[in-house]
Amino acid sequence: MREVKRKFGERFVDDPALLSLYSREASFEEPAAGPLGIVYPVNEEEVAWLVKWAYENDITLYSQGSATSLSGNTILTKPGLIVSFEKMANIVEVNPTDSYTVVQPGIRIEELNVELARYGVFFPVDPGSVRSATIGGAIANGAGGMRGAKYGSMRDWVLGVNVVTGRGDLLKLGCRTLKCRNGYDLVRLIVGSEGTLGLVTQAVLRVAPLPESAVAVRVYYNDISSLVEDVVRIKSARIWPLFAEFMGPAESEEVGLNRAYTLFVGVDVNRGAEGGILARLKSALTGHIADEAIGIEEAMRLLEPRRRLFSAQVSIMRRQLGDQGVLVIEDVVVPVSKLPEAVRRIAELAQKLEVPLSIGGHVGDGNLHPTTWFKRGDLEGAKRARRFIEGLGKIAVELGGSVSAEHGIGTLKRELLRLELEPAVLEYMRSLKAVFDPKGILNPGKII
Amino acid sequence: MREVKRKFGERFVDDPALLSLYSREASFEEPAAGPLGIVYPVNEEEVAWLVKWAYENDITLYSQGSATSLSGNTILTKPGLIVSFEKMANIVEVNPTDSYTVVQPGIRIEELNVELARYGVFFPVDPGSVRSATIGGAIANGAGGMRGAKYGSMRDWVLGVNVVTGRGDLLKLGCRTLKCRNGYDLVRLIVGSEGTLGLVTQAVLRVAPLPESAVAVRVYYNDISSLVEDVVRIKSARIWPLFAEFMGPAESEEVGLNRAYTLFVGVDVNRGAEGGILARLKSALTGHIADEAIGIEEAMRLLEPRRRLFSAQVSIMRRQLGDQGVLVIEDVVVPVSKLPEAVRRIAELAQKLEVPLSIGGHVGDGNLHPTTWFKRGDLEGAKRARRFIEGLGKIAVELGGSVSAEHGIGTLKRELLRLELEPAVLEYMRSLKAVFDPKGILNPGKII
Repeated sequence: MREVKRKFGERFVDDPALLSLYSREASFEEPAAGPLGIVYPVNEEEVAWLVKWAYENDITLYSQGSATSLSGNTILTKPGLIVSFEKMANIVEVNPTDSYTVVQPGIRIEELNVELARYGVFFPVDPGSVRSATIGGAIANGAGGMRGAKYGSMRDWVLGVNVVTGRGDLLKLGCRTLKCRNGYDLVRLIVGSEGTLGLVTQAVLRVAPLPESAVAVRVYYNDISSLVEDVVRIKSARIWPLFAEFMGPAESEEVGLNRAYTLFVGVDVNRGAEGGILARLKSALTGHIADEAIGIEEAMRLLEPRRRLFSAQVSIMRRQLGDQGVLVIEDVVVPVSKLPEAVRRIAELAQKLEVPLSIGGHVGDGNLHPTTWFKRGDLEGAKRARRFIEGLGKIAVELGGSVSAEHGIGTLKRELLRLELEPAVLEYMRSLKAVFDPKGILNPGKII
Repeated sequence: MREVKRKFGERFVDDPALLSLYSREASFEEPAAGPLGIVYPVNEEEVAWLVKWAYENDITLYSQGSATSLSGNTILTKPGLIVSFEKMANIVEVNPTDSYTVVQPGIRIEELNVELARYGVFFPVDPGSVRSATIGGAIANGAGGMRGAKYGSMRDWVLGVNVVTGRGDLLKLGCRTLKCRNGYDLVRLIVGSEGTLGLVTQAVLRVAPLPESAVAVRVYYNDISSLVEDVVRIKSARIWPLFAEFMGPAESEEVGLNRAYTLFVGVDVNRGAEGGILARLKSALTGHIADEAIGIEEAMRLLEPRRRLFSAQVSIMRRQLGDQGVLVIEDVVVPVSKLPEAVRRIAELAQKLEVPLSIGGHVGDGNLHPTTWFKRGDLEGAKRARRFIEGLGKIAVELGGSVSAEHGIGTLKRELLRLELEPAVLEYMRSLKAVFDPKGILNPGKII
């Protein structure tokens, strides 16, 4: 460790207060060990040096962006060093004509989009944690978010990465062009690998032109089945929504809307076509249309209450449990046509397990975020919450979906992944891990 | 081989005439050996059986769709069996609400789109060979095509694959949903792996709603620099073209247009917004606008002459060389802003090497298809053509592009790939190959 201290100087930290702060993430997964220190590299040579040193000295490394992950993706499973990318947070290049930007991993998505807007382009991946989530974390976690139905997730928007593997090799992967066929697609192997195959030191991201205009509606429903059936109806009408989000009655009331199931749908359109699309959208809906918007900013404003779902859930939980509540935000995905059955079965599951349920999510792409909570220290409650997570995964897999849409596997869903994938597939994944990280020093105990 | 004959009966063929027919692909690469036979499996169990048998008996396998590849991706490098997917060509499911279709690998892209159109959706990847190219071949080759600037390439549209690896394991990978985070992204490792990691037996493809409407223009230019500068101008104006294609003066004349550099640009738009977008598009252009179109079918009709570029090139070559011409269609990509420099340097290269040059391509995404030809048996001409290919790759890499945008590496560009990727990256690719195909029985001598 002396060499690391010498190399990084003040950028090596082992102050216990800071170590404790960096040990937690947004999930309720508990770290199994404390960090030996936090290292703040400033360039990729330092990252490569650090990983080589760790490889030679059998030291475990945990890369960290802003630790907003929700599946135990960043927490320590045994003692090791945290590698923070806070000091590698620059935008290296913005090239709107060539539709790409080059960035360091520590830049926050929202910060990046503020800069990109000056060039008339944007980076479409929009996770709930967009204000603090970093590009490096979003790559590691294969992040998704609100614009998924139209724009997909990280794997669709990362053109290239520089990555330091668990052997300390710095690999420059991918291209600056959208089309690129230079051998096996290692870029997308890194995307979503949760820091278990390598540490991303730079990324080339594809950017899209800002939509010209948009329309949006906010719709109320008496029951959740009618709401998700309307989402199926929108998709059946071949409307390709920019977002289709929802929240429940208690949460809607909490953010100042009616006490009803609330659906938010937005569609990006060409200027001049707003009226026609809005009419088509409204005619596909059976709920009570409470609000409508024309224009990008107006559509985003209409969506704004949905962005407060998380704080609404926290408020509701606080009224029940005071300061001692632990919020569990889950993440599953099913084909859109299976949403009615999924929400029915999820409600039944919560009832059976006697856990509180708040359900919201990105229904446009079949992605649900069922949320529950329990009191800190209530071991029985925590056990019920874990049974709830397990049950959700089973429902998703049975309906042809996946145990995770966008939060990833981490420590939380390792067992559930075994429900979805056959043993042979897991065996190949373990072999790939061994190629990139033969000593298992990168974020061990995650995914596989 | 006796067991294979017994297992496949009449679906094992070793008639020399057929063997010779199946030995060739659309490229000018020569096979280094003849096939031992052709096998036509009808289901994935048969494919898995065959690969297991080949693994145990050290027999090489070459999977084949319609052999339209242009980089030596399918040709035999040593004796082995050809696995044809002609008899696995069904559409298993079309699900427009959930935005996916499940298909067998032998289905042709155009056939698939005819069926999908009945549901109001389409599969956007549109290679030049779309009438004969199969989905299995397109996955193996990571195909691109005319709609790349807007819709990307195969990797963006394959949600899941069933694949038999070189160890004979049948792996079910990916999801039916767009968002999906079930471990490492092995789906995209298979896409573009050119049949060297596994044989795809089924695929889940993402589909998109058919565009509501479109506008398009055909524009003439006196020189190619003005043409590609207009493409840069379109991209700088933040217009996101559905296609931006071009062809040279001789080829344009050959298909019945003016003797000029011809640019075809189409943009998909909402119904009602055609006028506004067409005006914006036209105001970004400096060339002579010879034709314009409003509506999807009209835009596709305007593009139609561009689809005859290949036969125009063949006609021009025939007038020079008679029946003995060998056409070499190249494939490189550069960032769009580098197109003016790229086309200038490519013309200089052709002149220096004294090779004929016909240039066309998908300029909207920076993808050029410089084309040359030589007389069969003219060893000096063939050598010059190879030097031309090498020079093109160097230009692309120097300008920040790639040695292949969409045709892949095959046998033709193995050496060039070494120009683009550092040795460490190639080493990791070789290790991945060893995981999936430890005995090297799948399409050897390609990519790495």
